[in-house]
Amino acid sequence: MLMSGNDYRESLRRYRPKVYVNGREVRSVPDEPRLAPGVNAVALTYDYALREELAPLMRAGAVNRMLAVPRSSQDLLNKLEAVRLVCQETGCAQRYLAGDAFAAILSATSQMDGDLGSDYSTRFGAYLERACAEDLAVGIAMTDGKGDRTERPHAQANPDAYVRIAGRRQDGIVLRGAKAIITGAPYMHELLVMPCRNMTEADSDYAVCCAVPIDAPGMTLVARPAGRPGEAAAKFSGRYGQSTAVGVFDDVFVPWERVFLAGEWRYSSAFTYAYATHHRHTCIAARAGFGDLLIGAGALMTEANGIDLDRAGNLRDSMVELIRIVEGFFACGVAASAYCRSDAAGVATPDAVFANVGKLLLATQIYDMHRLAHHVSGGLIVTLPGPEEDHNPATGGRLSELLGGHPDIPYEKRIEVARLIEDLTASNQSGWYSVISLHGGGSPEAMKMEIWRNYPLGNKVDIVERLLERGVLADGIRKISRNRQPGRCCIEGCVVPLPQPAVLTLPTKKA
Amino acid sequence: MLMSGNDYRESLRRYRPKVYVNGREVRSVPDEPRLAPGVNAVALTYDYALREELAPLMRAGAVNRMLAVPRSSQDLLNKLEAVRLVCQETGCAQRYLAGDAFAAILSATSQMDGDLGSDYSTRFGAYLERACAEDLAVGIAMTDGKGDRTERPHAQANPDAYVRIAGRRQDGIVLRGAKAIITGAPYMHELLVMPCRNMTEADSDYAVCCAVPIDAPGMTLVARPAGRPGEAAAKFSGRYGQSTAVGVFDDVFVPWERVFLAGEWRYSSAFTYAYATHHRHTCIAARAGFGDLLIGAGALMTEANGIDLDRAGNLRDSMVELIRIVEGFFACGVAASAYCRSDAAGVATPDAVFANVGKLLLATQIYDMHRLAHHVSGGLIVTLPGPEEDHNPATGGRLSELLGGHPDIPYEKRIEVARLIEDLTASNQSGWYSVISLHGGGSPEAMKMEIWRNYPLGNKVDIVERLLERGVLADGIRKISRNRQPGRCCIEGCVVPLPQPAVLTLPTKKA
Amino acid sequence: MLMSGNDYRESLRRYRPKVYVNGREVRSVPDEPRLAPGVNAVALTYDYALREELAPLMRAGAVNRMLAVPRSSQDLLNKLEAVRLVCQETGCAQRYLAGDAFAAILSATSQMDGDLGSDYSTRFGAYLERACAEDLAVGIAMTDGKGDRTERPHAQANPDAYVRIAGRRQDGIVLRGAKAIITGAPYMHELLVMPCRNMTEADSDYAVCCAVPIDAPGMTLVARPAGRPGEAAAKFSGRYGQSTAVGVFDDVFVPWERVFLAGEWRYSSAFTYAYATHHRHTCIAARAGFGDLLIGAGALMTEANGIDLDRAGNLRDSMVELIRIVEGFFACGVAASAYCRSDAAGVATPDAVFANVGKLLLATQIYDMHRLAHHVSGGLIVTLPGPEEDHNPATGGRLSELLGGHPDIPYEKRIEVARLIEDLTASNQSGWYSVISLHGGGSPEAMKMEIWRNYPLGNKVDIVERLLERGVLADGIRKISRNRQPGRCCIEGCVVPLPQPAVLTLPTKKA
Amino acid sequence: MLMSGNDYRESLRRYRPKVYVNGREVRSVPDEPRLAPGVNAVALTYDYALREELAPLMRAGAVNRMLAVPRSSQDLLNKLEAVRLVCQETGCAQRYLAGDAFAAILSATSQMDGDLGSDYSTRFGAYLERACAEDLAVGIAMTDGKGDRTERPHAQANPDAYVRIAGRRQDGIVLRGAKAIITGAPYMHELLVMPCRNMTEADSDYAVCCAVPIDAPGMTLVARPAGRPGEAAAKFSGRYGQSTAVGVFDDVFVPWERVFLAGEWRYSSAFTYAYATHHRHTCIAARAGFGDLLIGAGALMTEANGIDLDRAGNLRDSMVELIRIVEGFFACGVAASAYCRSDAAGVATPDAVFANVGKLLLATQIYDMHRLAHHVSGGLIVTLPGPEEDHNPATGGRLSELLGGHPDIPYEKRIEVARLIEDLTASNQSGWYSVISLHGGGSPEAMKMEIWRNYPLGNKVDIVERLLERGVLADGIRKISRNRQPGRCCIEGCVVPLPQPAVLTLPTKKA
Repeated sequence: MLMSGNDYRESLRRYRPKVYVNGREVRSVPDEPRLAPGVNAVALTYDYALREELAPLMRAGAVNRMLAVPRSSQDLLNKLEAVRLVCQETGCAQRYLAGDAFAAILSATSQMDGDLGSDYSTRFGAYLERACAEDLAVGIAMTDGKGDRTERPHAQANPDAYVRIAGRRQDGIVLRGAKAIITGAPYMHELLVMPCRNMTEADSDYAVCCAVPIDAPGMTLVARPAGRPGEAAAKFSGRYGQSTAVGVFDDVFVPWERVFLAGEWRYSSAFTYAYATHHRHTCIAARAGFGDLLIGAGALMTEANGIDLDRAGNLRDSMVELIRIVEGFFACGVAASAYCRSDAAGVATPDAVFANVGKLLLATQIYDMHRLAHHVSGGLIVTLPGPEEDHNPATGGRLSELLGGHPDIPYEKRIEVARLIEDLTASNQSGWYSVISLHGGGSPEAMKMEIWRNYPLGNKVDIVERLLERGVLADGIRKISRNRQPGRCCIEGCVVPLPQPAVLTLPTKKA
Repeated sequence: MLMSGNDYRESLRRYRPKVYVNGREVRSVPDEPRLAPGVNAVALTYDYALREELAPLMRAGAVNRMLAVPRSSQDLLNKLEAVRLVCQETGCAQRYLAGDAFAAILSATSQMDGDLGSDYSTRFGAYLERACAEDLAVGIAMTDGKGDRTERPHAQANPDAYVRIAGRRQDGIVLRGAKAIITGAPYMHELLVMPCRNMTEADSDYAVCCAVPIDAPGMTLVARPAGRPGEAAAKFSGRYGQSTAVGVFDDVFVPWERVFLAGEWRYSSAFTYAYATHHRHTCIAARAGFGDLLIGAGALMTEANGIDLDRAGNLRDSMVELIRIVEGFFACGVAASAYCRSDAAGVATPDAVFANVGKLLLATQIYDMHRLAHHVSGGLIVTLPGPEEDHNPATGGRLSELLGGHPDIPYEKRIEVARLIEDLTASNQSGWYSVISLHGGGSPEAMKMEIWRNYPLGNKVDIVERLLERGVLADGIRKISRNRQPGRCCIEGCVVPLPQPAVLTLPTKKA
Repeated sequence: MLMSGNDYRESLRRYRPKVYVNGREVRSVPDEPRLAPGVNAVALTYDYALREELAPLMRAGAVNRMLAVPRSSQDLLNKLEAVRLVCQETGCAQRYLAGDAFAAILSATSQMDGDLGSDYSTRFGAYLERACAEDLAVGIAMTDGKGDRTERPHAQANPDAYVRIAGRRQDGIVLRGAKAIITGAPYMHELLVMPCRNMTEADSDYAVCCAVPIDAPGMTLVARPAGRPGEAAAKFSGRYGQSTAVGVFDDVFVPWERVFLAGEWRYSSAFTYAYATHHRHTCIAARAGFGDLLIGAGALMTEANGIDLDRAGNLRDSMVELIRIVEGFFACGVAASAYCRSDAAGVATPDAVFANVGKLLLATQIYDMHRLAHHVSGGLIVTLPGPEEDHNPATGGRLSELLGGHPDIPYEKRIEVARLIEDLTASNQSGWYSVISLHGGGSPEAMKMEIWRNYPLGNKVDIVERLLERGVLADGIRKISRNRQPGRCCIEGCVVPLPQPAVLTLPTKKA
Repeated sequence: MLMSGNDYRESLRRYRPKVYVNGREVRSVPDEPRLAPGVNAVALTYDYALREELAPLMRAGAVNRMLAVPRSSQDLLNKLEAVRLVCQETGCAQRYLAGDAFAAILSATSQMDGDLGSDYSTRFGAYLERACAEDLAVGIAMTDGKGDRTERPHAQANPDAYVRIAGRRQDGIVLRGAKAIITGAPYMHELLVMPCRNMTEADSDYAVCCAVPIDAPGMTLVARPAGRPGEAAAKFSGRYGQSTAVGVFDDVFVPWERVFLAGEWRYSSAFTYAYATHHRHTCIAARAGFGDLLIGAGALMTEANGIDLDRAGNLRDSMVELIRIVEGFFACGVAASAYCRSDAAGVATPDAVFANVGKLLLATQIYDMHRLAHHVSGGLIVTLPGPEEDHNPATGGRLSELLGGHPDIPYEKRIEVARLIEDLTASNQSGWYSVISLHGGGSPEAMKMEIWRNYPLGNKVDIVERLLERGVLADGIRKISRNRQPGRCCIEGCVVPLPQPAVLTLPTKKA
């Protein structure tokens, strides 16, 4: 049953999570001003799903797109567009991480069940059905505290540096430890605990995946404010933002029906990698939505400055470069969708090479996006008097006279757009967007390793080898043959690489 | 009726084009060594289409994919994969330009017929049917001599700087002038003459599109050799290459049934723009195929140097960057296919923003591709003794002893790969690839203008305006409203942008 | 007589400027917490000059280096090192703008006196002597409000959009209008009003340069807070920062002895360009000092994360890239110093090409510097709990246990460095640094135009022409001959370019 | 006694080196067409030194600047300008490598003598004096064959993979092995054999530095042609070019007075590193000279195309970017000169950080230089008919009519410039320039390691530490303290970093 944004706010009253923000305990999450921008952003994902004209994007059947497990290229494309749409309004939708995790856990538990005869996927299927039916907001608790990075989980001086199974009971498991970065935690209904890396046998207690209500006994969230609540100059991030929290698990009990991995250490990386691929794919759409905001704001700002972009070649060039960046990485998301693969569980997983290329591009180019937005906007955005000055009778009127730009555009409009650009690109909110784009979903090095691991390098070597005549080089190629996996371009029985889209049937829309 | 490569070679004997290469007249095109690499490359597009396992890619029904007008996203994706496939073997397929032009002329003549009541599209349809049935190789004569670039065609000191209708007869038209760059001209069956820019009324005589047999009386081709024929060190471009020719039209007669635009100057840009979009889209696949060659060769070379890329982080980084570039621009081709539009003539046109972004990326990044290939290969590639030295009894044996790399890989293999890399990235062939990637299909500035012209900027401004509350900014947005075209993200009756993929139904392949 | 930092603070009490910060009037500038980081930064330039071991850098004779007019390459190099030194501590020294303006005004007034027989340079010399003797802090009021950017000053709807001479009296002139961005204005002793562009005859009233005490009647400053005063997480910018102010001139009287340009519109651009060259040169050193802070902080952060940069190749690569950027643009400052020119007034002006190249590099690469600092630091910097949490008894201890990194480095140290990086690279302070690096001292387009205007392009054409044999191309080169100015590489009587360093005598230091 | 270019050619007749080019033995080096472009380039370094107006640059006292050991900042600056000057004419001067090696060997032998009491520096001093007095051309034989790169020299399957001391006699040593890349070898008078890496004790026989006449018995050179001799289209590289050779040493005897290192393995790296620093510094000037050619040719080509760069903003932008790159890396050479250090032997060594940054910038940006030159030149450069066509009576005249650009510029001039650009940027010569810029003097990774090794990172950490208050972080900094070398910015007794230029006295030139 789909909720509205207000239903969601009310539903949060049914939970009593232990939350601290900047050292002070939060009495009521839905009423807490320091979290309001985060709650607003999540609420919009509910409201949009109820709008009929958005249904093709925002719903998959009766399920909110943010939660839906993708089953086809079409689902993946629709997810991208849905996430881009909500992020155009709110900067970061936050709630889509749940769908990414659902897809990953479904794949990984199915694989595990197939190998081990376990019934994790059935158990998870039941959980998934309930989460979708109740239209929950579910946060992902993945990144552990990690402690000393040169040691594995079990070898840490402090055994709680990674979240672990501290005890096993007949009815469930007991969790201890810390998750360092949980997006939107305070205003979620539940958390999905997931492993953040591959494990060895000695790390078995750290191979754990399960679902925990946000107010489970023993659970504490130490959070940062969402956005820039209450700041007059925060045109955007006073309304929408994101909180992140450290999650402390002090002997949190989890019943078996909510446990989806419990010690099967060989499968830990299956959860981690599958989530990474889905999540990086979705990140592409999220940041494209943020890019849309920059493009629109940059265009408005140049206009307010009295500049005609059709004549000012050097500023138009920067606008086109901004567009090129945003549509360039979004294209990788589209390609990853078109070249997806379906597994035995029916989950459509985006192509890992394209998804990682797209995430890598956005991770490094978010800085260029800020640069370009600054270039087209001019220096005014960080030197204008603050909003408190607008109503200073001693100065307000005179500033309005003296600092107007184009005569058709009142000073009040010009500074409003300038403050929006400042908020988006030159505030602590923009710093947050930079870092989270760079490191969220894994650092650039992690993307590069996934590209390397998944690329059908051997196929490319084959081409060259054939060119140089097979006989001569036959011995030379052994060492890189382990990379000669079929990749996305090979089908059985085909002696030259045959790509997958040959079997696609894409109907096109009439213009 | 699909021909084989040999059929194609034989078919060339039925034509007697007037061709000069480096100042000497060519007696027989199919027997001319200086053109052989070009003939080989085109021949491969014939042979591949006859291979059953490649049929899904290389044929659209009974038509060679290089000639087929795309009717759907699927067609566009299959064209991309087909072109990538042949360019992996030959560097540049050349023949696909015909398909790009066919699609463009079909769209443009249909539009013209709809507006003017003319029957150009029927006429062109008949030509198209014959060309496909006879499986022709058709070259595109588009770029005019241009003369003084600050003057329009009709105002040039020399009226023949652009190809023009020099006379109109009852049975057809007479062409005069020069086309400066015609890809593969000497070994084509026919040429399609197309306009290279928008025209004014005074330029009416220059608004002309028609088909001309390669050996039409009055036609002279002044060509460069294809590739590096006969050079021992040219491991690749001794076998495959591309000729370009200047085409001189000295009163060439064209009967009406081969004329598809003759003075309707308002429609000139429709031909030019439509061809540009199709062609840039296809270029993406061509250069991705070339990129595959570099990736494979780079991997082989590092191996021959005794380097393990799993350990040599800095070289692996360069390999990943090379992959990122190639798959990054290819993704734009895929996205342009997924977001294509069909027009009244049933032609599926790739999304112009994605197609131009992809072409712009490859145009500038081809240089980075060379840099990365050089980085992983080492300096040896331009300092090794040449192939004549291999058989010098005074030095050959000693060099083989002294310059071996990894003990498992004989010197002979190492230098063979080194010479391939040199040929691909540090020879005049590589220079040709750079310049043709940068300027072929239009200069970077042309791509930028198309991105700017086609981008739904107004939609992005709307988002920001809504955020800042509509009332306040209502006046401020007038000046950029002309860019508020629907773009690819809007449908009628939808108050927020609704993307097109919502109606796609993409079946996915089972892994 | 050199002042100490405390002398400077006390000296501010002798002025009664009318200053508003965020809508509230400031009672006492030296006691105002919202301006304290700015006062601290300027105070340090006083204290450093009193330290004997820094004397070679921080003083030029008896004058603070921030005020000294450079007379030689050595002076320019020492200025660079002095500014880098103070900016390593305070991020931005602010006070050096005075020295840049002094040099520019001395050059421009000398040129004007030579042409017109005026005595502006004598008048300015007296002012300069007093300013140095009294060791003043002098702000530069250059950037006008500008109004509609498509109109010249005299054609603006509001005649006060640019500061102008609103009246001339026997004893001086009366100023009206607005200067939009004045660095550090509230805590300066005086302001130098300078023209920000070239002027036409109709703009004569806008061609004005003069000195105004900060508390002149009719002068109002509308300022932003300096840095992030009072924010617990602002490890750096709570201590040091910069205020910028809008300066409103409402009939400010200036006596003739303080007026250095008053209507001689042809010379307006001489003031503007000369200041731009000196200022861009100095900016290079300022941002190199900021870069040093990032380099040091990045190294500390990786260490606190338990990473050994000698092993972690990909992070070391980012550190080297950060160093490459900072030393790469600093090198341009050094080269501009080595290739300086002295004019008739004895002012050594840095080479304009190198100075503009250096400023252009830092303007665009500041974004890369942030990216690299983020890359080496990890995502923690924007997700750690805030400083108020450190003392929360309910969470502080447990977080300290759970979030430690390397066992040798206490949690308290790790988060302290993390917060410093956040402050420097992901806060509104970092946004300010980005924008001010990009647009301060002119936008990138302004730098490009200066490079183009000053580059001895004709010399380079000569080389090629000679290569192609002079006769053949003799006519062809006329059109670009106007760029064939002597440039820095030509001396009289030399038929090939002869560079200037040939006459340098640089003693070198023993290692 | 300085020779003229013709003296040099004649002097080559006194030598009988065993040289093969492309499998054929060379009878007489000065008469060999395939080597003529290389001989021409070296000859110019002789002729220029005889021109009085160039004396300040081209001579250091009575010695050709290409051979002179730098003793001061001034010498280093003058060397940069001299090398830039000759490379503007010839692309690559080749002969300056001798001066780089002389400086390195003088430093290294002095250090060795100081430590070991040997007299290598006296011996080398005598050799140096003679080489300068006789005005020799001396090649550097440094890069060994290397064999399997994972093994040290002594552990290679083939002991001759690196050049080694195969025997010691009373009167000298006997050399065996291969040097893989020797610049300009065939037309040198002598070769300096140098070690290319650090060695271990087991590698003692490979730690060897000595001078060998080019025609020493047992010496064979297997060379590539210099430039593109005899190719009609090679406007530039038909005249000037560079040969590289593999040098095979088959029991070459070297008398003791020509031996400067013979087994003292600990000092091998001193030779290698010192040469690398000098050589990378000089490379900066060489490539700046090549850049000047591109800048001039690009400007001429745009003009020939009828384009006014003052109006065509996007092409001017590319010209400015080209200038920015060239002057940006040249500035690093200037800075390395200004911050040089003198050692006990009186050799002025450029600052290693700046020298390596400059070389790293040119190594990667040469590709961008080609891209920019192509951008401003247009596609014509690789599609124009070849020079043989110019005199084809059947086509020549008509092409000249049809392909003219601006009416003031004859077709003949336009294609001449176009062919020059093709030669410089799109031929195998340009490929050679790319690869040699990237890998010559060490790969990019080598530069990065030198930057890392030499950067005073500890100083930067100190700044941050001080900011965070020394006490708190005292323990935290231990691990990176080994990088806290004094660097170029520290002097004894100074508690804050004090830079070196404070003691410079740079007189400036009057404009």
